[in-house]
Amino acid sequence: MKPTIVMQSDFGVNSGLVACMHGMCKLVDSELITCDITHSLPAFDIEAASYCLQYTVPYWPAGTVFVSVVDPGVGTSRRASVAKLKNGSYVVTPDNGTLTYLNAMIGVEAIREIDEEKNRYQETKEVHTFHGRDLFAYCAAKLASGKITFEEVGKEYPTEEIVLHKIQTAEVREKYVRAVIQSYDPFGSAELSVLNSNFVKAGFKIGEKLHVTIGTDDKKVFDGLIPYERSFGYVGKGEDVLFNDLASFVTIGSNQADFRQKYHMEPNVNYTVEICEA
Amino acid sequence: MKPTIVMQSDFGVNSGLVACMHGMCKLVDSELITCDITHSLPAFDIEAASYCLQYTVPYWPAGTVFVSVVDPGVGTSRRASVAKLKNGSYVVTPDNGTLTYLNAMIGVEAIREIDEEKNRYQETKEVHTFHGRDLFAYCAAKLASGKITFEEVGKEYPTEEIVLHKIQTAEVREKYVRAVIQSYDPFGSAELSVLNSNFVKAGFKIGEKLHVTIGTDDKKVFDGLIPYERSFGYVGKGEDVLFNDLASFVTIGSNQADFRQKYHMEPNVNYTVEICEA
Amino acid sequence: MKPTIVMQSDFGVNSGLVACMHGMCKLVDSELITCDITHSLPAFDIEAASYCLQYTVPYWPAGTVFVSVVDPGVGTSRRASVAKLKNGSYVVTPDNGTLTYLNAMIGVEAIREIDEEKNRYQETKEVHTFHGRDLFAYCAAKLASGKITFEEVGKEYPTEEIVLHKIQTAEVREKYVRAVIQSYDPFGSAELSVLNSNFVKAGFKIGEKLHVTIGTDDKKVFDGLIPYERSFGYVGKGEDVLFNDLASFVTIGSNQADFRQKYHMEPNVNYTVEICEA
Repeated sequence: MKPTIVMQSDFGVNSGLVACMHGMCKLVDSELITCDITHSLPAFDIEAASYCLQYTVPYWPAGTVFVSVVDPGVGTSRRASVAKLKNGSYVVTPDNGTLTYLNAMIGVEAIREIDEEKNRYQETKEVHTFHGRDLFAYCAAKLASGKITFEEVGKEYPTEEIVLHKIQTAEVREKYVRAVIQSYDPFGSAELSVLNSNFVKAGFKIGEKLHVTIGTDDKKVFDGLIPYERSFGYVGKGEDVLFNDLASFVTIGSNQADFRQKYHMEPNVNYTVEICEA
Repeated sequence: MKPTIVMQSDFGVNSGLVACMHGMCKLVDSELITCDITHSLPAFDIEAASYCLQYTVPYWPAGTVFVSVVDPGVGTSRRASVAKLKNGSYVVTPDNGTLTYLNAMIGVEAIREIDEEKNRYQETKEVHTFHGRDLFAYCAAKLASGKITFEEVGKEYPTEEIVLHKIQTAEVREKYVRAVIQSYDPFGSAELSVLNSNFVKAGFKIGEKLHVTIGTDDKKVFDGLIPYERSFGYVGKGEDVLFNDLASFVTIGSNQADFRQKYHMEPNVNYTVEICEA
Repeated sequence: MKPTIVMQSDFGVNSGLVACMHGMCKLVDSELITCDITHSLPAFDIEAASYCLQYTVPYWPAGTVFVSVVDPGVGTSRRASVAKLKNGSYVVTPDNGTLTYLNAMIGVEAIREIDEEKNRYQETKEVHTFHGRDLFAYCAAKLASGKITFEEVGKEYPTEEIVLHKIQTAEVREKYVRAVIQSYDPFGSAELSVLNSNFVKAGFKIGEKLHVTIGTDDKKVFDGLIPYERSFGYVGKGEDVLFNDLASFVTIGSNQADFRQKYHMEPNVNYTVEICEA
């Protein structure tokens, strides 16, 4: 059984771009099965690509070949690489920060720069704008099909050279957490920069009401009590709730409502969240 | 040949959530093939989930395993179930109304509550917000792969206990139908609460011009003649037409135009439709 | 290995329509693998369907069976056809202009009208509005599964009778090109009606700064120098660039910005582009 190729990008789903990548995999080996994560990552948003991989990769079998193409530097000198993760899966991607979360949470065992002489599709050589198809999908398909080994991808380089973006962290003390909102899920819930496991270590217990403040240096947008529960359903409709989220990080949402809209939280603003006993 | 797993939800397609569900199926059995219905069901809209299944399930082979996750009660005491339909297919879903249309139109042969001890993914036990991945996709994959039988899903309960939402009906007499608009398709056509087959029973014939009124108690939005034709193409561009729709129900649309917009029909308003001879 | 079935339409992805087409393929032969190009083609836009196929079809293996359903004339007398392309792949589609670009760029070897008696799904005969499911997907699946040969699709007709829409062309002379903007990609870059290969023939060289004007008869929206480079990354952030695009045509974009928005280019306006030496 050949590994599945699983793709994400910022190409959107209104064109044939993604289908060209799937087709390229089938061109290399028609037995390959291809799937998608999402192709609606925010345009050029490498951090979103990195974040999305961290909570998706663990739920696919070891050996899966991921292709991630958020690539503002396409056609320039940034490295096009294949990372072998410590769980046995592969990520084919521009080495531009996309590997940050995976590097921190799963670990990269080794990384190789794709040899464009050998592992680039040769029939579109005059086109330099679609590495997603001509380089990343093509090389991923060669690897997944067994036509090349990981060693044949290209030259290895030190994992210390992997490009990393900043990861938000949290201050965690006995019964106190200071974190930031690092992303919002599709329902408008706010994911904090504190791991479920660290929140538990701070000593908070399911069922407790916690004192939460959210704001920027200029302005507080929330100051009140929020219960820490297993999930949405443990609070009334429209009420706020803190819970361990599927994507590894503690999250604040509203039951059947949009927390972000409710408190008029603006995009691209860095909100600090403090949580302590009530 | 193992049955396909076919999924729908209200998770949207801008994140990795859906990919986590697909990946979970592959984790259980890498030979499984997974497909999607849609993941853009309106958030928390159980009736939309129920409706979408009724016109999709009949066009997949008997034995297909459907996963439907519109689950406002995730993490609470609503039953997580697997229904075996009378056509031989399965639906893995919260038992919250999602089975309503299938129950009425295909029939549920038997239903079992998923045994969370045996058929929940054990490595994410501290997370209670993603039953789509940890419970529904996981259990569906075990069933589709043959690792468990339907009997091993969990304890059976009477089909009379299945949670059902209200289904809109129609009054059908000789040359008279009184129905409601129960949904709109992606092109803005209005689907009525009268089955194609019942419309035929009322004695209306293809090619006839019918007198149609549409309105609420307060306000009529349409009063005029609409031809009953095989499809859009039998009337001029922009003209209205009544036809037997793909989703089993009689529908009113406009050729190459949006019927709903044209008559300023508002969302969440219940429109009554009366149809009789001209 | 049976060929993959690859679909595109204007059905959108918020309903179960596309899943009915995939399911129909599995109903015919559960071994078939189905994929998508996009289902978000602009409604009723046959030219968009035709254009999308031209840059997607070449990146799938010979023998692939494409299904394209943008079909304003569904249920009327337009021909429902299967075209065999000169590269060995098939396109199952209403013959309404959808084949235009493929006919010009790959060539149609032969075309047959689908015999609805033999190659239409018989259990939905009272429904005339979903040929995507009942005719196109069903016939494609019979062909891909080997249940029928191309000859058994239905009666052949001359390729000269294929319905074609107008293709935009370009005037190409030594160091001069006059073209139109024929489409925009998802990032807002403008694709011109001049093939990469013809641009090269005009004598322009990578690295050259070219004099570009863009406008309508009434109004110029751009008059300035734009470098002809391999890709976005060769110019500064926000700067404009001309390059050979993935979809075969020369394109003007802005690095990490939206060219179309930047110059307030309106939809449905025909812009002429002149390019010459600086």
